[in-house]
Amino acid sequence: MRWQDIDQQPCSVARTLAIIGDNWTLLVLRDCFLGVRRFDQFQQRLGVTRHVLSDRLRKLLDGGILEKVAYQQRPLREEYRLTDKGRALYPVIVHLAQWGDKYLADTHGAPITRIHASCGEKLDAVLQCSHCGETVGPRDIRIEENPRWRGKILP
Amino acid sequence: MRWQDIDQQPCSVARTLAIIGDNWTLLVLRDCFLGVRRFDQFQQRLGVTRHVLSDRLRKLLDGGILEKVAYQQRPLREEYRLTDKGRALYPVIVHLAQWGDKYLADTHGAPITRIHASCGEKLDAVLQCSHCGETVGPRDIRIEENPRWRGKILP
Repeated sequence: MRWQDIDQQPCSVARTLAIIGDNWTLLVLRDCFLGVRRFDQFQQRLGVTRHVLSDRLRKLLDGGILEKVAYQQRPLREEYRLTDKGRALYPVIVHLAQWGDKYLADTHGAPITRIHASCGEKLDAVLQCSHCGETVGPRDIRIEENPRWRGKILP
Repeated sequence: MRWQDIDQQPCSVARTLAIIGDNWTLLVLRDCFLGVRRFDQFQQRLGVTRHVLSDRLRKLLDGGILEKVAYQQRPLREEYRLTDKGRALYPVIVHLAQWGDKYLADTHGAPITRIHASCGEKLDAVLQCSHCGETVGPRDIRIEENPRWRGKILP
């Protein structure tokens, strides 16, 4: 399969990756969640070419994950802001970061700490069933296939 | 910055992506969590060349995310299994999938449904503070920088 066909797969992971599954794109998102909004600031932090950054921002705009908002009228200056759809990706970024904090931190420890402002504690996110509140791992899950693709998804 | 230098960044997201931040790698992980363990099965499902698949599996073995386990002695046959470090990536895959289910599903609906076996309900994972139990969004978080990099990480 060619990667450009990946969004045709009956798989929500594949379809999501077809939009954000690119290293620079995910780092742009990381920066968005840290409050970065302006092209030059993204470029300075990521150290990528304007061409690469423009391409990734375009994909995020096209995917409805970012929107351009004018912060100055004349001359017109625009910045990139997360949409609700974009903010919904926060758990992905947080869990990528937490995993790195746990398994890849150097001797200096985690670069940043996320504090849950309202309770003041360090955020330690776990995958939890919102129905019963139990922490959930891969072995606690049963997969049900959509009848449309029965027999085509599970090994 | 060149991508190969990305793991030098004081950022756990970047370091994590340096290992798994590749579309095929993330789809290999998706399949691991669905129970796929054998090379030919990965290749058949992903439709990638043996070369690409070998490279991605090698990265996951080197990163301690997968381990090779013999399932037959003579002739020796090995399969790929998630380590504890690999299983710890489950929340990333689940949230990628949930986001795709919500925003990218076609008219047939989500391809698969994850059922929390012990309570029988559809898994609807939210980012939650394990201290106070509140659901957490990007605006509920305060970032504290590691003094080692103060002023170098936040915009």
